Amino acid sequence: MNSQWNELAAIKRELAARDWFPGTSGNLSIKVSEDPLTCLVTVSGKDKYKETESDFVLVDEDGRPLTDQGKPSAETVIHLEVYKKTDAGCSLHVHTLDNNVISELYGEKGSITFRNVELIKALDIWEEDGEFTIPIVENWADLPKLGKAISEKIKPDTKAVLIRNHGITVWGRNAFEAKRHLEACEFLFSYQLKLLHAKAANLKEVL
Amino acid sequence: MNSQWNELAAIKRELAARDWFPGTSGNLSIKVSEDPLTCLVTVSGKDKYKETESDFVLVDEDGRPLTDQGKPSAETVIHLEVYKKTDAGCSLHVHTLDNNVISELYGEKGSITFRNVELIKALDIWEEDGEFTIPIVENWADLPKLGKAISEKIKPDTKAVLIRNHGITVWGRNAFEAKRHLEACEFLFSYQLKLLHAKAANLKEVL
Amino acid sequence: MNSQWNELAAIKRELAARDWFPGTSGNLSIKVSEDPLTCLVTVSGKDKYKETESDFVLVDEDGRPLTDQGKPSAETVIHLEVYKKTDAGCSLHVHTLDNNVISELYGEKGSITFRNVELIKALDIWEEDGEFTIPIVENWADLPKLGKAISEKIKPDTKAVLIRNHGITVWGRNAFEAKRHLEACEFLFSYQLKLLHAKAANLKEVL
Amino acid sequence: MNSQWNELAAIKRELAARDWFPGTSGNLSIKVSEDPLTCLVTVSGKDKYKETESDFVLVDEDGRPLTDQGKPSAETVIHLEVYKKTDAGCSLHVHTLDNNVISELYGEKGSITFRNVELIKALDIWEEDGEFTIPIVENWADLPKLGKAISEKIKPDTKAVLIRNHGITVWGRNAFEAKRHLEACEFLFSYQLKLLHAKAANLKEVL
Repeated sequence: MNSQWNELAAIKRELAARDWFPGTSGNLSIKVSEDPLTCLVTVSGKDKYKETESDFVLVDEDGRPLTDQGKPSAETVIHLEVYKKTDAGCSLHVHTLDNNVISELYGEKGSITFRNVELIKALDIWEEDGEFTIPIVENWADLPKLGKAISEKIKPDTKAVLIRNHGITVWGRNAFEAKRHLEACEFLFSYQLKLLHAKAANLKEVL
Repeated sequence: MNSQWNELAAIKRELAARDWFPGTSGNLSIKVSEDPLTCLVTVSGKDKYKETESDFVLVDEDGRPLTDQGKPSAETVIHLEVYKKTDAGCSLHVHTLDNNVISELYGEKGSITFRNVELIKALDIWEEDGEFTIPIVENWADLPKLGKAISEKIKPDTKAVLIRNHGITVWGRNAFEAKRHLEACEFLFSYQLKLLHAKAANLKEVL
Repeated sequence: MNSQWNELAAIKRELAARDWFPGTSGNLSIKVSEDPLTCLVTVSGKDKYKETESDFVLVDEDGRPLTDQGKPSAETVIHLEVYKKTDAGCSLHVHTLDNNVISELYGEKGSITFRNVELIKALDIWEEDGEFTIPIVENWADLPKLGKAISEKIKPDTKAVLIRNHGITVWGRNAFEAKRHLEACEFLFSYQLKLLHAKAANLKEVL
Repeated sequence: MNSQWNELAAIKRELAARDWFPGTSGNLSIKVSEDPLTCLVTVSGKDKYKETESDFVLVDEDGRPLTDQGKPSAETVIHLEVYKKTDAGCSLHVHTLDNNVISELYGEKGSITFRNVELIKALDIWEEDGEFTIPIVENWADLPKLGKAISEKIKPDTKAVLIRNHGITVWGRNAFEAKRHLEACEFLFSYQLKLLHAKAANLKEVL
C-alpha cells in the first residue's frame, strides 16, 4: 500500500500546486486491490494544500474505512462507482473555474464534445476526425444518487464525467494516466471557453 | 501566543503565494485571548511578501499595541469589530481583482447571493437549495465609521463582508476555517464573473 | 553531449514551471552535431513536469534513435525539418491556450503579423516600423506531411510556425535564443487577443 | 555598492517570479550615489529569469559603464532621466500584458487617471476623493528622444509613466517604495480593464 500512498500523495501535491483544491474541495483515490476492491481515498474536510500522515484512508467496496486515518471523503461513493464500472486504477475529482463554467453552459445539452483539437490525443483519440465526449450530470445533493447518475453515464470509452456547477471526475488505468486525462480535460475546457468568447465577440471581424 | 503567531504566519505565507497582498495591501489577525479581548494583527505598511520578526503586533480591544513590533494596521478596528460581533478566532482582509470587481458590480444592490454551486458547502451551507449572502458596504475613508458599517451588516450567519472597490473581510472560528472561507469566496467571485460574461455574450447561442 | 543535455533539461524545467506541457504534450530538441545531423529530442509520451534520466534520446537525421533512453517523440520529424532548413540550434514545440486560439482565429488567413509593439524586438526586429510574421499550417495528422508543410513555410527570416488547433514550433540559434523567441511569441499572442477583445467590445467608448 | 546590488537582485528575483521579464525584456536600476550621479542598472539582453554575477553594471550620469560586468541596458537613459528629475532611488521598467493594453487604450488621451479605488493609497493618495494619474508617451524608437519625452511628463507628484505598446517605468525613493508602486499600478491596470469589460458587456443587466 506504501507505493500507492506515495503515488497519490505525489498527485495531490501537483494538483495543489495548480490551486485545484479551493476551500478544502476535491477528493482523490487510488485502487489498492481488485478483489476484494479496496482503495485509498482522501480524508474528509482537510486542507489539501498541506501534507500530513493522515491525508488518505483505506476503504472497502462499500466505502467503509479499513484504517484509522479519519473519515473518508463523503464523495467516496463516486470513486467506488468508477472502479466498479471501468478498468480505472486512479480517480480524481477537482473543482476549477472553467470546469464549472463548462458544466453549466453545456448542462442542458447533457454533454460536451471536443474535436479538431490536437490535445484530445492525450485522451487516446488518435483518428484524424476523432472526437471526445464528456457526459454531464446534475449535482444531486444525495451522494449515492449522484454516484448512480455518474455510473449510468459511463460507457466503455468514457474517461471523465462533469457534475453541474460542481466539478470533474476523471480517471485512468493508473495515476499517470488519470493525471494526463485531467490536465488534458482542463486545457480543453479553457480552450473551448476562449474560442466561444472569440466567436461571440466576432473577433475575426476586427482582425 | 507563539502558536497563534505561527498560525498567522503560515496563513500570511500562503496568501502571499497567491499574490493577494499587492502594494503592501491586506491585513490579517488572530485572536489570542477572549476576555479581555486581545489579538495579533499585521503591522502597518510592511511588504507582506516578506517574513520578518515584526510582522505582527499584539493589540487590546481598543487597538492599542501591547507589544513593540510596530504600529498596528490602520484597519485593526475592522478586525476588532468582527471579534466583538461574532465567534471568530481569525479574520482576513485581502484585495483581489475579482473581489473588487464584484464589490463594484453588486455595490448598489448592497449584497451578493450565491446558490446552486457546490462550493458554498465550504461555507457550511449544506441544504439542497441553500444560499450564501455577502453584504457589501461603502468604502468609508473614516475607519471607525467603516468598522461600524461592517459591524452593522453582521448577522449570526454572516461569514464575510465586501468593501466597495476595496476588498473582502472574512473570518472563521479558527485560522483553518477563515482560510477555507476566503478560498471559497474568491472562487465564487471569479465563477460568478465568468458566468455573467458567458451569459452577457450569449455563449449558449454559439455553442 | 552532456552540455546540450543540461541545456535542454534547464529549458524543459522552465517551460514546465509555466505549465506549458499539459497532458504530456509538447516536445523539445537541441542540435548536437551538424554533419551528420544529430539532436537530442524528448522521449515520447512522458510527463514533462517530471525529471528523469531518460527524458531525451539522441536521434540521427532520419529520426532514428542512437541511444536507448526510449522512443523519440512522434513529432521529431518537425524538429529535423527545422534543423535542415535553418541555422537553428534548438527547437521548441508547446501547446498553450493562446497559441491555440490565435492559430484558429488566423488559420484561414494563413499567418499572423505583429507590428507597433515593443516586444517584437525580442525577435530581432529593430526597425521603427518593422513587423514580425508567423505562418500557420493545417494540423495534418500525417506527421511527415505536417513536417513538410512546416518546412515549406520557412523563409530565411522565419522564427516560428503555428500549427492550427495544435501549438507553436519556434527555434533559435541556441537554447537561449529559442526560449527568448518562445516567450516573446506567447506574449504577443496573449496581447493580440486582449487587444482584439478590447476593440470588439468598444472599450474606448466606455472609458 | 554591495547593499544596493543585493536590493536590486532581490527585486529582480521577485519580478521574475511574477513572469514580468518576457523575452529578456525589462530593465531595473538603483541609485548608488547622488553627486556625482551613479546607479546600478541591468546588463543588456540577459535572461532576467536567471541570476548571475554580471546582472548589473554601475553607470555614470551619462550612462557610461564604470564597472566591467557588460553593456548597460539600452534604456539606461530613461532611468537616468528619472533620477535627474525626481527624488527616486530606484526605478523599474517592465512589460506586462495589461500595462500594454492600457497604454494602447488610453494612448490617444495621453494619460490614465484612477479614483474611487482603495489601492491608490499604495501610491500615497490618502484624500477621500483623491486621484492618481499616469501620463502615457509614444514609443519613440530613438531612446534619447524617448527619455526626453518621459522626462517632460514628470511633474512633482508623478510616480510612473506608461510607454505606448511597450511598458511601464515606475519609481520610488527606495527599492521598497518602487516595488510597492509597481505592484499597485499593475493591480490598477488589471482592475480597470476588468471594470471596462464588465461595463461594455452590460453585466449589471444580467445579474
